[in-house]
Amino acid sequence: MNLMSANGLALQLTALLEGLSKRGADAEGGVTRLLYDRAWLEAQHYLAERMKEAGLDIRYDRVGNLYGRLQGSDSDAPVVLTGSHVDTVRSGGYYDGAYGIAAGIAAISHLRETYGTPLRTLEVVSLCEEEGSRFPITYWGSGHIAGKHDINLAPDILDEEGISLHAAMSLAGFGRSEQPDPRRADLAAYVEVHIEQGILLEKLGQRVGLVDTIVGQRRYSVHLSGVTNHAGTTPMLMRLDALAGAAEMLGLLETEAMVEGEPLVATVGKLETAPNTPNVIPGTVKFTVDIRHDQEKSLTDFSERMLTRFGQIAARRGLEIEITSWLSAPPTPMDPSLMNRLQTICNNLSLPSRRMVSGAGHDAQLFAQLCPSAMLFVPSRGGISHSPEEYTPDDELIDGAAVLAELLRQLAYDLPEKE
Amino acid sequence: MNLMSANGLALQLTALLEGLSKRGADAEGGVTRLLYDRAWLEAQHYLAERMKEAGLDIRYDRVGNLYGRLQGSDSDAPVVLTGSHVDTVRSGGYYDGAYGIAAGIAAISHLRETYGTPLRTLEVVSLCEEEGSRFPITYWGSGHIAGKHDINLAPDILDEEGISLHAAMSLAGFGRSEQPDPRRADLAAYVEVHIEQGILLEKLGQRVGLVDTIVGQRRYSVHLSGVTNHAGTTPMLMRLDALAGAAEMLGLLETEAMVEGEPLVATVGKLETAPNTPNVIPGTVKFTVDIRHDQEKSLTDFSERMLTRFGQIAARRGLEIEITSWLSAPPTPMDPSLMNRLQTICNNLSLPSRRMVSGAGHDAQLFAQLCPSAMLFVPSRGGISHSPEEYTPDDELIDGAAVLAELLRQLAYDLPEKE
Repeated sequence: MNLMSANGLALQLTALLEGLSKRGADAEGGVTRLLYDRAWLEAQHYLAERMKEAGLDIRYDRVGNLYGRLQGSDSDAPVVLTGSHVDTVRSGGYYDGAYGIAAGIAAISHLRETYGTPLRTLEVVSLCEEEGSRFPITYWGSGHIAGKHDINLAPDILDEEGISLHAAMSLAGFGRSEQPDPRRADLAAYVEVHIEQGILLEKLGQRVGLVDTIVGQRRYSVHLSGVTNHAGTTPMLMRLDALAGAAEMLGLLETEAMVEGEPLVATVGKLETAPNTPNVIPGTVKFTVDIRHDQEKSLTDFSERMLTRFGQIAARRGLEIEITSWLSAPPTPMDPSLMNRLQTICNNLSLPSRRMVSGAGHDAQLFAQLCPSAMLFVPSRGGISHSPEEYTPDDELIDGAAVLAELLRQLAYDLPEKE
Repeated sequence: MNLMSANGLALQLTALLEGLSKRGADAEGGVTRLLYDRAWLEAQHYLAERMKEAGLDIRYDRVGNLYGRLQGSDSDAPVVLTGSHVDTVRSGGYYDGAYGIAAGIAAISHLRETYGTPLRTLEVVSLCEEEGSRFPITYWGSGHIAGKHDINLAPDILDEEGISLHAAMSLAGFGRSEQPDPRRADLAAYVEVHIEQGILLEKLGQRVGLVDTIVGQRRYSVHLSGVTNHAGTTPMLMRLDALAGAAEMLGLLETEAMVEGEPLVATVGKLETAPNTPNVIPGTVKFTVDIRHDQEKSLTDFSERMLTRFGQIAARRGLEIEITSWLSAPPTPMDPSLMNRLQTICNNLSLPSRRMVSGAGHDAQLFAQLCPSAMLFVPSRGGISHSPEEYTPDDELIDGAAVLAELLRQLAYDLPEKE
């Protein structure tokens, strides 16, 4: 890598991240950029300007995905795409999503300065939405590109203030039929760099995580009904205590998840009890279950076994149970050939790397339906994300961008290998 | 018992309960009478009128306890008192508290009509507050009578609307120094009838519960702190999941309470988790523990053992734990001699009765500090209370009032037994 230009890549990356951190900066020291809100618009405008400065042609599609394009000499060749999402959770950090866009712009800019016009067109995308923080919908950006979402079929869901998705999109200047259809059928590859949002790389002293698979997920809501009763006058054996039943289920879930072992994870993140009064036996409890695994069969088997056991616990305790499944996503393998290339690049750059599973969902799993896709991680300090405390030091951010740049170079500049 | 007058007792009792049910009737079909509010004032005024009609002299004390007095011929003899509390929980039932006042008025009225002037003065009291539903304080009525509360020392606590206890009392016309001091030192006995608020009498087919002891209580708040983290990227073995820790504690508490056996009860009625999001490992959980037993040593031993075990669970899991004790009341035995009299009365009336422990707290536990006190229960349908569904049929209500009337007759009309 040209040292002068590599230094330029580092400077551009950190400048872009700093610039993005100011679009949506909030009182908690974090960043809040919600789909189509003012901070989101400012961020997209900011990125469009930086893309132009980097010599890229910019365009928005109909839902607000922003592209920067470096046209290749072979105009018939499919496009090599990189990027990530520009939206954040409420009071999120500087890196989740933003890093993948900044690294993409910096990498393509570096390649253009170093190697000039590529054979195949390179694009970077700032995806409009991934987190589901404003509206109860996720992957609004990549889902449109992959054909999973359809702007015309999407129900007109509301945000917390009662503003509809369609109204918010229209106010931001999108959703017009003359704007380009978001669907893509011209992609050669998609590559995304992202912070790990976990503690594995840090714990193991690795610099780069190479994602073999993005886990599959199952999410359920469990509603238990017993009988609300007086905490003093109801003997233990006459109780139908919904919270005691829930506690037994949570204990079982944790134990069985430990027994099953990595990479399975099972989490009860949300639990609410009613009437929620110290001297009243809880009559109802609602809780969520989030189960993830990189193997579809293991995921399904474990989930079904847990739901069966929950039903048995409820029946033994005389509780009514109602289980609703509200998310079911299969595991998504990344492209092995691309991942092998990334492994070789890391080895050549002497970057300690590790094959791993992504326990979080990412836009790459949508692109994997369209084209060979790859994903790499840099460490997250303390595994913290979705928080103003989210942090990755500059040198580790630059590592990831350098690996990305080298893969993009191979994909866009190298002559086709003989098959 | 004079049948004509006994019929009068029944009619008066049911009329009083119906009248009270209209003071504070709410949209849910229940009754809401909170200390010093409009419905509370209406109820006290209504009862004062009915006491007058029954030939009783009425008076309020400084905090709003309402007395109806039937003066005895021996003006030096201490007073025989009955009654209960006029306040309710929010959307409570028709019987909790109200029944004891109505039964007391009906019983004394019946005795006056049947036997004329007693030897010893009989009084019925409509206690101003027991439930703690408006202000975070309980037994405001009986606590003043027993000297546990002091109007001048009470902190000026606020209700949910920011109205202070002192302001509310003043608006209702109380708290003036010229009004009678609530403290009593002239009581011969206190007898209270109440609905059971439990399912034991119904399950066992008994008509009257004879309370040997009102349970002691311990209440704690437990605050667990772990680390909030991503549900997908944090392996099971790297988690500090506060909710999983709480679930283990709840499971232990329930199991140990079952092993300990009746009359011990242990309840987690309130539990809150944060951030309470399906895909985030809960970093903090707060829950309450309510433990009750009729033996002080068993109560203390069990409570301390549980807190120790909670500490061990937290330590093993790497969670921080903070336990706050916010209520500690010793068990209160009722007067054995009075309870034996009640037993004999039930036997003579052929009413199936059962000695029992009161799992709920009652005003009688405050009076027990002042004078021999007794408490009897009638069944609660389905054990339901603190709800518009609270129900006891008329014939069972009349049983309790008849037993009360006979005890009051013995205490107020019979010549003293030779010791």
